Amino acid sequence: MTDTSSNKMWGGRFAAGPDAIMEAINASIGFDKRMAAQDIAGSRAHAAMLAATGILSDSDAEAIREGLLTILSEIEGGKFTFSAALEDIHMNVEARLKDLIGEPAGRLHTGRSRNDQVATDFKLWVRDQLDAADAGLNALMQALLGQAEAGADWVMPGFTHLQTAQPVTWGHHMMAYVEMFGRDQSRFRDARARMNESPLGAAALAGTSFPIDRDMTAQALGFDRPSANSLDAVSDRDFALEFLSAASICAMHLSRFAEELVIWSSAQFRFVALSDRFSTGSSIMPQKKNPDAAELIRAKVGRIFGANTALMMVMKGLPLAYSKDMQEDKEQVFDAADNLMLALAAMEGMVRDMTAQRDNLAAAAGSGFSTATDLADWLVRVLGLPFRDAHHVTGTLVGLAEKQGCDLPDLTLAQMQGVHDGITNDVFDVLGVQNSVNSRMSYGGTAPAQVRAQVARWKDKLA
Amino acid sequence: MTDTSSNKMWGGRFAAGPDAIMEAINASIGFDKRMAAQDIAGSRAHAAMLAATGILSDSDAEAIREGLLTILSEIEGGKFTFSAALEDIHMNVEARLKDLIGEPAGRLHTGRSRNDQVATDFKLWVRDQLDAADAGLNALMQALLGQAEAGADWVMPGFTHLQTAQPVTWGHHMMAYVEMFGRDQSRFRDARARMNESPLGAAALAGTSFPIDRDMTAQALGFDRPSANSLDAVSDRDFALEFLSAASICAMHLSRFAEELVIWSSAQFRFVALSDRFSTGSSIMPQKKNPDAAELIRAKVGRIFGANTALMMVMKGLPLAYSKDMQEDKEQVFDAADNLMLALAAMEGMVRDMTAQRDNLAAAAGSGFSTATDLADWLVRVLGLPFRDAHHVTGTLVGLAEKQGCDLPDLTLAQMQGVHDGITNDVFDVLGVQNSVNSRMSYGGTAPAQVRAQVARWKDKLA
Amino acid sequence: MTDTSSNKMWGGRFAAGPDAIMEAINASIGFDKRMAAQDIAGSRAHAAMLAATGILSDSDAEAIREGLLTILSEIEGGKFTFSAALEDIHMNVEARLKDLIGEPAGRLHTGRSRNDQVATDFKLWVRDQLDAADAGLNALMQALLGQAEAGADWVMPGFTHLQTAQPVTWGHHMMAYVEMFGRDQSRFRDARARMNESPLGAAALAGTSFPIDRDMTAQALGFDRPSANSLDAVSDRDFALEFLSAASICAMHLSRFAEELVIWSSAQFRFVALSDRFSTGSSIMPQKKNPDAAELIRAKVGRIFGANTALMMVMKGLPLAYSKDMQEDKEQVFDAADNLMLALAAMEGMVRDMTAQRDNLAAAAGSGFSTATDLADWLVRVLGLPFRDAHHVTGTLVGLAEKQGCDLPDLTLAQMQGVHDGITNDVFDVLGVQNSVNSRMSYGGTAPAQVRAQVARWKDKLA
Amino acid sequence: MTDTSSNKMWGGRFAAGPDAIMEAINASIGFDKRMAAQDIAGSRAHAAMLAATGILSDSDAEAIREGLLTILSEIEGGKFTFSAALEDIHMNVEARLKDLIGEPAGRLHTGRSRNDQVATDFKLWVRDQLDAADAGLNALMQALLGQAEAGADWVMPGFTHLQTAQPVTWGHHMMAYVEMFGRDQSRFRDARARMNESPLGAAALAGTSFPIDRDMTAQALGFDRPSANSLDAVSDRDFALEFLSAASICAMHLSRFAEELVIWSSAQFRFVALSDRFSTGSSIMPQKKNPDAAELIRAKVGRIFGANTALMMVMKGLPLAYSKDMQEDKEQVFDAADNLMLALAAMEGMVRDMTAQRDNLAAAAGSGFSTATDLADWLVRVLGLPFRDAHHVTGTLVGLAEKQGCDLPDLTLAQMQGVHDGITNDVFDVLGVQNSVNSRMSYGGTAPAQVRAQVARWKDKLA
Repeated sequence: MTDTSSNKMWGGRFAAGPDAIMEAINASIGFDKRMAAQDIAGSRAHAAMLAATGILSDSDAEAIREGLLTILSEIEGGKFTFSAALEDIHMNVEARLKDLIGEPAGRLHTGRSRNDQVATDFKLWVRDQLDAADAGLNALMQALLGQAEAGADWVMPGFTHLQTAQPVTWGHHMMAYVEMFGRDQSRFRDARARMNESPLGAAALAGTSFPIDRDMTAQALGFDRPSANSLDAVSDRDFALEFLSAASICAMHLSRFAEELVIWSSAQFRFVALSDRFSTGSSIMPQKKNPDAAELIRAKVGRIFGANTALMMVMKGLPLAYSKDMQEDKEQVFDAADNLMLALAAMEGMVRDMTAQRDNLAAAAGSGFSTATDLADWLVRVLGLPFRDAHHVTGTLVGLAEKQGCDLPDLTLAQMQGVHDGITNDVFDVLGVQNSVNSRMSYGGTAPAQVRAQVARWKDKLA
Repeated sequence: MTDTSSNKMWGGRFAAGPDAIMEAINASIGFDKRMAAQDIAGSRAHAAMLAATGILSDSDAEAIREGLLTILSEIEGGKFTFSAALEDIHMNVEARLKDLIGEPAGRLHTGRSRNDQVATDFKLWVRDQLDAADAGLNALMQALLGQAEAGADWVMPGFTHLQTAQPVTWGHHMMAYVEMFGRDQSRFRDARARMNESPLGAAALAGTSFPIDRDMTAQALGFDRPSANSLDAVSDRDFALEFLSAASICAMHLSRFAEELVIWSSAQFRFVALSDRFSTGSSIMPQKKNPDAAELIRAKVGRIFGANTALMMVMKGLPLAYSKDMQEDKEQVFDAADNLMLALAAMEGMVRDMTAQRDNLAAAAGSGFSTATDLADWLVRVLGLPFRDAHHVTGTLVGLAEKQGCDLPDLTLAQMQGVHDGITNDVFDVLGVQNSVNSRMSYGGTAPAQVRAQVARWKDKLA
Repeated sequence: MTDTSSNKMWGGRFAAGPDAIMEAINASIGFDKRMAAQDIAGSRAHAAMLAATGILSDSDAEAIREGLLTILSEIEGGKFTFSAALEDIHMNVEARLKDLIGEPAGRLHTGRSRNDQVATDFKLWVRDQLDAADAGLNALMQALLGQAEAGADWVMPGFTHLQTAQPVTWGHHMMAYVEMFGRDQSRFRDARARMNESPLGAAALAGTSFPIDRDMTAQALGFDRPSANSLDAVSDRDFALEFLSAASICAMHLSRFAEELVIWSSAQFRFVALSDRFSTGSSIMPQKKNPDAAELIRAKVGRIFGANTALMMVMKGLPLAYSKDMQEDKEQVFDAADNLMLALAAMEGMVRDMTAQRDNLAAAAGSGFSTATDLADWLVRVLGLPFRDAHHVTGTLVGLAEKQGCDLPDLTLAQMQGVHDGITNDVFDVLGVQNSVNSRMSYGGTAPAQVRAQVARWKDKLA
Repeated sequence: MTDTSSNKMWGGRFAAGPDAIMEAINASIGFDKRMAAQDIAGSRAHAAMLAATGILSDSDAEAIREGLLTILSEIEGGKFTFSAALEDIHMNVEARLKDLIGEPAGRLHTGRSRNDQVATDFKLWVRDQLDAADAGLNALMQALLGQAEAGADWVMPGFTHLQTAQPVTWGHHMMAYVEMFGRDQSRFRDARARMNESPLGAAALAGTSFPIDRDMTAQALGFDRPSANSLDAVSDRDFALEFLSAASICAMHLSRFAEELVIWSSAQFRFVALSDRFSTGSSIMPQKKNPDAAELIRAKVGRIFGANTALMMVMKGLPLAYSKDMQEDKEQVFDAADNLMLALAAMEGMVRDMTAQRDNLAAAAGSGFSTATDLADWLVRVLGLPFRDAHHVTGTLVGLAEKQGCDLPDLTLAQMQGVHDGITNDVFDVLGVQNSVNSRMSYGGTAPAQVRAQVARWKDKLA
């Protein structure tokens, strides 16, 4: 059955023959129309510069700039008809401009080419994404700060290997993610500063003999300066790769948090209750709440790093300057950017809405002799035992508690002194989870006072 | 300037608040509607089985099956309104079925769930792609066989390190790709055989207590058998990953050939002339022909392997059974499949259209003392010299020819005997590129007779 | 401080200048010596063939074959001195052979080149790994079958979204992995069948004019046939990529199981107790057991798929035939193979050693109204309610039970009839987790009888 | 044959049973011993701080610090015996310290744990690599500046799609790579600034109750400050991922240049002659020179980005804080760093040694009517033709020249005026490749004066 049908499908898909195949593989208008606003902004800046340098008459420039505004409003209003035969956004806009203003339209392309034009458009688009990621991270960090401030002293288990290790505070755990997302934000900012050079005027690859003013167009478009080598300007896609690299690391952070939310939402953990908005239910099991949004966020790192892989592989081994392979850059970046922004927004919403299950957190924090380390540290600090000896004494006391079915603070002083006679009543100050977290006052430690100091520092920073 | 605008964009993008964000991240109807035909085929098979096993009345089953056909024709006719509120293709179809036939629609979902339903739909879709890749490879191999047959004895340089090494034949070079694409085809076929098990009836994850007949639905849908473990059936995406793996290797082969076509089309090589259909020109440099299609094909391996990376990362570390992360599987496979089929079709068209520049190939084949190896082999074979000694003699003769500005066949017998007195007139039989390629009669070698034998073998195989 | 030191390090690292840099980047003996046994086996087969076809005298062939055996035992005994100046394993062996037997050593290289020699060596090495993966999977599946047979009727929660969905059996869950690993095994076998063609005799790229017998060497080395195109034979690395692709999917399966073991080992789940051998403890928290082996196995998919990415990117866009880039193939495959085999062995050990915590599994299986679906199915099957209506009734009953703080089987018949008066005493046959799993008798379902049938089928298959 | 042998191999490899398997998968000393110097530096700083804060006696601290120096010299002198039973570098050093100084060794571990210790060691190691990459890029850019300065006015073809587009200068082409490597350098510097925070004192995950001074150890180790969240400090591997991301983009740049060198070295191009040091010859074809180093450099992007993929996948979805999965971080970074430094050094050597083939470059620059664009620009600039009309006139003139078998400057003025009567003798000023490149004086253009200005700017910058 399938051979026939698939052959037919095969045939059907490309029934129109080689020309249809070439149009399908070659035309980019299907996706690069997303850069219409950037394309028009670039052309308007170019026209103004051509007039300022006397290459174009003022009246021609004015007609061009007005015509471009008309086109922009046509596109924004959904009244523009894109044509695949015209291949890309640049030709679509230029052809429409000719319809609107006639002959002067033909003068716009003076001193530039599609190679520097597309690089300019794409850089402007990516720059907006760098800013959007910055803003999205800001909002997410604000949500985390809210959780951290509220729960600066709520105790919960700190895990290593997903095994209870030591008690920490809810606020401390939230602030760990603020650190991660803060680094992500600084990566996006570094990338923005590095990429903010204008390719416009690099022309096809060699620059131009027209007396253009590249500083003027750079400034008009918000670039810090024109790029310094025209060959590089048209063949560079570092800015897209650096965006994808930073986005991948950010999405990895999101995946870690999402994983925690999925685990914390399980019936076995119940550390957190997600809002109905970011979960889905079951029509017959009303208590069931699937953490769909968290799972989808967890998955996004695959998609975003997949885009990074794709573009890295495309660029591998390409000789200078422009090769058509580079047309594959946009869809990857568009998809990665859309999904990063969506994941950031969904995570922000989840964090704002979620409720820590304080009782469950506290109960779990105290299980498993989680303050054994505190006892050992006390033995070192107060009694002066070497670290390894203190460990031995602690292990014996834990074994004793385990045999009696109680926790460490439930042992009597006499029982403790039976193991090491130097132990005094002061030891009870460090046992118990609240004492434990309060004691960890080293810089960056889990003590509520430390957490509150970090919250304050970040509030200042993000203000 | 940008901070404001991007914050606005950020806000604007998700202005409708958390509910809009959740719908944006959660709904799959935007892409899974591509599986409408598969979804309806699966439901029709399921309804027929429910009737045959007495779980459903015949009249209900008939109403369902007819209603589904109506929906299919609505979708194919573009008259179906998809709703994002209904999330996915399954709910969209089911809701419409309820509109059309009322209460019996609610009985269709007996003994199945969305988990096995989506696995079934997606497997059917991927299976079609495995068949389409098979057919596309067949067409491409036919095109290559055409080139190989025509040029079984056209000489060209064989390269290692992109340096001329030994002469080969055009047909031999074409047949190397037939071997690669033949392996690709066999990989797609193995994948098809392995994946052709029906998940339908696995229900949510545990199977069902209804007395369903999974063999019957499997057979109706062209599956070889039902899958043997219901947990695995709903959480397995191997079939998608294996498709992506095989597609990646195939795309890598395409990238190698595309690279050769780009290099061969350069002014420096001129080994091949691509047709106008698969290249683009310049309005002012009429002789210029950019190999756009070849470049775009070269790039596709990035995109396809990027999809492989994405899905591999999504699946990493997912506990059983279904997790929402897995909803990210489809867009990656859809995009990779579309681009693989397009690249195969474009390559087939290019191969059919392209013209080997025989004179240039022949001239390049003879340059660089490319038959020095033949001379060395003759010294071993006829004079019995050890390999390393033969190399020394050959090197000396090449040096002599280089000094005289001539090629090896242009040396006189006397000159040769000056280097090694055992050399006889017979040596001239192996010098010259045509003699060289004719002599390489080992199985799979470049001799025209060997090439023709391989062409015949493949014609039989693909018939 | 660092600028100086790193500059020094930089300088220090390559202090010996360009020649040291070239040797460092160019020589492969540091890693390709792992193929010594394969290289010698290939050369011995080649020598025997050269004698059989009269290209070499019997006595020369005998000397070569004996000399190679001597070298093999030197290498295996750790008495062989590898030289980086001799670049690779082929030249190291050949040079030593010349030391041992003199002039005939120079005749071994007749009718072959390093290009087909390295392809042959590497294929033999990869073929051994395909077999090792096959054997490793076999052992792991046997261990899983042991767990499945013992626990065919132990109930546990079946999860979707890591939320309790329906009860399943321990055996059923184990068998899901048998299905996955079974597919992995069949992928490795398909790969082996496809790659088992001998490159030997393809020579540099064009075949040879010596009357060699490629079938004879192919047979001697266990290949099914000689490869059919000499250009392809020396430039093909599909076999390595297909091994890496199959290994990646297999490692992904391992990562899923490893993730489950980590989660199941947490204090919150306690579904499984890992043996001390495959976990590590804490000197002060004796009850703590870190699932180190599971975590390391979970990580291996990164490493193995990273190798796949690396080699795919290396091969992208390489023109035919051999390019030096391809020397990067071996280290990736060596590392991936070593880690796959290690992960399989560690997982096998963990599965053999681990103990299901049956009481915890059973308690968790019954929580969360996990048999609500069974109730709904009963309403459909016995009372003939449409699916969606049955869901409504079930939801109401679950809500009632939740309010009373009891589970579904604890409701009285009267209470149930208050919600739907058609309900009879028979309903209690499907409530409760054991009834639930017993009822799921559809093919591949979780019922113990189904699990046992699958265990029996696989035991036959693996015998 | 293979089944038996591979089973034996399988068995053989892990014959020693589960304990051997666990040691093989768990121990890291095989690779983390590369961080011995960093580990000892960290411990020495920690000991000094413990003494300064009164946690340790001065004499104990002195004994520890001296003992550690002894160990360092043992390791550097190759006299240290590493033990796999002691698992990692930290335990190996600590155990040896106990041998050397006895009981005080046990006090060193106060207020820290292996989690912050390994993070500190690894960060110090990666920081050195960031500096080494910086230095390596500096050297490479210096080599490129040398080439650019010498050949600021040598003409060569500028390519798009590997088709001759417009003439450019050798210096301009070299400077395009300076721009790329300059961005790479700034990426490494940004990464260094971002990662330069000290994890030491974060302890296991929660900080410590000892009154440690994290600022003091941070300063002693050259960090800018202590990290601000102890959970983040032990679970963060951003610094490794950012190094790998920047290294991947840098390696991609290297692959592009390497590809050009391979193509330029072909017999068809002959644009460049590589030195013997960075290529390999053939014993029988003395004129053949394989660009081995360039090919190997081209391949390195696969390996380095493969490492990036591996670590990204390892980190995906890991819950806080430390998980054993993270032990997989080091080998990837070690291998990527080694190969990046090697590739940079090899490229620097190649660039210093290579010789541009000026005659071939010039001849190629002038072929294919490469100054047609200049003619069109002249028609626009001087005669005021609209761009599209100028293209039409130029196309006609190129067609005329092609028919006459001559180049554009060879047409007579009369012939030109036959096509457009406004053309004057001035047009000849822009035809010809030297005129063409001289005219492209826009900022960043290919004009020799522009190239020299950029060389001067970079010399200043790198001084």
